[in-house]
Amino acid sequence: MDKEKVYIFDTTLRDGEQVPGCQLNTDEKVIVAQALESLGVDIIEAGFPISSPGDFEAVEAVCKAVREPVICALTRAVKKDIEVAAQSLRYAHRGRIHTGIGTSDYHIKYKFNSNPEEIIRRGVEAVKYAKNFAEQVEFYAEDAGRTDNEFLARVVEAMIKAGADVVNIPDTTGYCLPNEYGAKIAYLKNNVPNIDKAIISTHCHNDLGMATANSVAGVMNGARQVEVTMNGIGERAGNTSLEEVAMILKSHPYLDLYTKIQSIQLAKTSKLVSTMMRMPVQPNKAIVGRNAFAHSSGIHQDGVLKHRENYEVIDPKDVGVDSSEIILTARSGRAALRYRLEGIGHKVEGGALDSIYEKFLKMADEKKVIEDNDLHLLIA
Amino acid sequence: MDKEKVYIFDTTLRDGEQVPGCQLNTDEKVIVAQALESLGVDIIEAGFPISSPGDFEAVEAVCKAVREPVICALTRAVKKDIEVAAQSLRYAHRGRIHTGIGTSDYHIKYKFNSNPEEIIRRGVEAVKYAKNFAEQVEFYAEDAGRTDNEFLARVVEAMIKAGADVVNIPDTTGYCLPNEYGAKIAYLKNNVPNIDKAIISTHCHNDLGMATANSVAGVMNGARQVEVTMNGIGERAGNTSLEEVAMILKSHPYLDLYTKIQSIQLAKTSKLVSTMMRMPVQPNKAIVGRNAFAHSSGIHQDGVLKHRENYEVIDPKDVGVDSSEIILTARSGRAALRYRLEGIGHKVEGGALDSIYEKFLKMADEKKVIEDNDLHLLIA
Repeated sequence: MDKEKVYIFDTTLRDGEQVPGCQLNTDEKVIVAQALESLGVDIIEAGFPISSPGDFEAVEAVCKAVREPVICALTRAVKKDIEVAAQSLRYAHRGRIHTGIGTSDYHIKYKFNSNPEEIIRRGVEAVKYAKNFAEQVEFYAEDAGRTDNEFLARVVEAMIKAGADVVNIPDTTGYCLPNEYGAKIAYLKNNVPNIDKAIISTHCHNDLGMATANSVAGVMNGARQVEVTMNGIGERAGNTSLEEVAMILKSHPYLDLYTKIQSIQLAKTSKLVSTMMRMPVQPNKAIVGRNAFAHSSGIHQDGVLKHRENYEVIDPKDVGVDSSEIILTARSGRAALRYRLEGIGHKVEGGALDSIYEKFLKMADEKKVIEDNDLHLLIA
Repeated sequence: MDKEKVYIFDTTLRDGEQVPGCQLNTDEKVIVAQALESLGVDIIEAGFPISSPGDFEAVEAVCKAVREPVICALTRAVKKDIEVAAQSLRYAHRGRIHTGIGTSDYHIKYKFNSNPEEIIRRGVEAVKYAKNFAEQVEFYAEDAGRTDNEFLARVVEAMIKAGADVVNIPDTTGYCLPNEYGAKIAYLKNNVPNIDKAIISTHCHNDLGMATANSVAGVMNGARQVEVTMNGIGERAGNTSLEEVAMILKSHPYLDLYTKIQSIQLAKTSKLVSTMMRMPVQPNKAIVGRNAFAHSSGIHQDGVLKHRENYEVIDPKDVGVDSSEIILTARSGRAALRYRLEGIGHKVEGGALDSIYEKFLKMADEKKVIEDNDLHLLIA
């Protein structure tokens, strides 16, 4: 069977950029957009042009600076938003307007003070209006994660009929579990008569730590676009991590899915986004954290030194990291100590190793991490 | 139906503590253990006593300092390890020895240079030996995530027969997807004749960002113990996050599962562990990140101000955070601006609000985050 493509829709510059402290100026946005282009992202959501003059200008600049990816601009289901988005996209090689409206009971009642029929009417009107201006139109059913599946299917059918090329099913509050989110996508796939005329997109938030798992459940049930950010940044606990989705699909060939992501650029792009947006990545972040390929317990170090795949499912080189690290602490064993001693030019075995290991443990209980200069002291 | 209990096994002090730079001295370990006791953790894995004299001493001190949780010590399937662990646990109110061996082809061939029958024999011997010393014995089948299910079932059956009270099914390399890991637990539940005589435990690593999702898939398929760390710290990309599992079970009542975690202490305990272990938590970390309850986009702020549940599935107060934050940036709308102006004593509506909002956007495009003192300038 031929592998099917999953489109990577990156919203680092929109959902990521709206985070407290992460705002970028136009030049910075262009640098990030160019990095995303070279990483192999299919669609770049560059901003929410109606939100401020600065954001409008940035979307326009991104359109001029990158060629390969589709450039997308966010709007509400409001004519003025759509007009401004269209204007910001006028230099795009290929442009997409991303419009939509809340579809859950919470949003219909408490946010819009409206009713289901009116919500569908407003959505259809927005999609049709956007079709006048952009090559591609994507519709988001905000808070789809908490929207009744039967009503959601009616919304999706109506939007595809109105011309939506992509239908986005956001778990806006990050409430779904993977089985629930997967079932939602499967329900749409099985119950919306015109579903094959559009691409289903996932957009998952990480409030319960489920964003990536939900997105993967989505593609396993028929979604073919995933909305992500570098390092999983975004509103509150953030969005699905681009790097996690890319490496999950790459390391699970039986899924028969692929993305265009050049994984070797992941580490570099992660650092660029983290630095530009002043948004630290925790050391234990999957794929791109400082410790993602660092081994410190004796059992693991011994295993990795014997055979890398004992403890690693991804070759660090695949994501642009030079190699696994063997870090010496009081939890390290003789195998790691011998390896690191060899690295500084000392071949030590047997009884000599045992005796240095005893001294090493005392030093490590005190100093926590033992560096090469400490090893020289131990040997002396 | 009565809710069933899921035991929380915290390994912050063992799998977390072995991380580069995270080593704690005995006094620090005791402080963290006491915090975990007051958080409501059922089992504290306090260390790996054979690994160093300092770790032995710390496990002993934790046994003396906490009363309620079971104290657990890690070993390999090695007599000396088990004897030392037993000695370190002698002051425990209730002690558990956690022993085990690798069961995947990778580990059997490349780590132990052994064969399946020999691995079972060594495991059984270790469990029986440990039973002489400790009230409870837990067995781990290291790299169970990549172990053939049929062989794993044989291993688990033999260990339960040998006396294991808990059988731990680690996804050591973090490779599984939730459907795979859930199916593995279901397979054991359905194919191990004596499975009801032991508790199945999950121990998931986060190399692909799946640790929490896999653990939840595990309990949905019959596991009743989850091994976790605060903030998800641990070897490489870390372990399952305690705070995520606790809040997922709490916010999904239909699962009919509960834990003893006092969620109101989560924020406090997260900060303690992060500070003590010098391990920063990224702002977009679920539940305990600085931004987990911060809203900055205009659409979200407007929604939250109308009705909190429009954009939040967890009440911040439930995890010990005072309240949601409304942060003003260039992505904020009029509703948020009006709300924050009210907070500093200015009621502004209609045309006056529009005119301040224009000035606000220009300032926000420049300054990124707008604070109360900036608002005073805008009003002046």
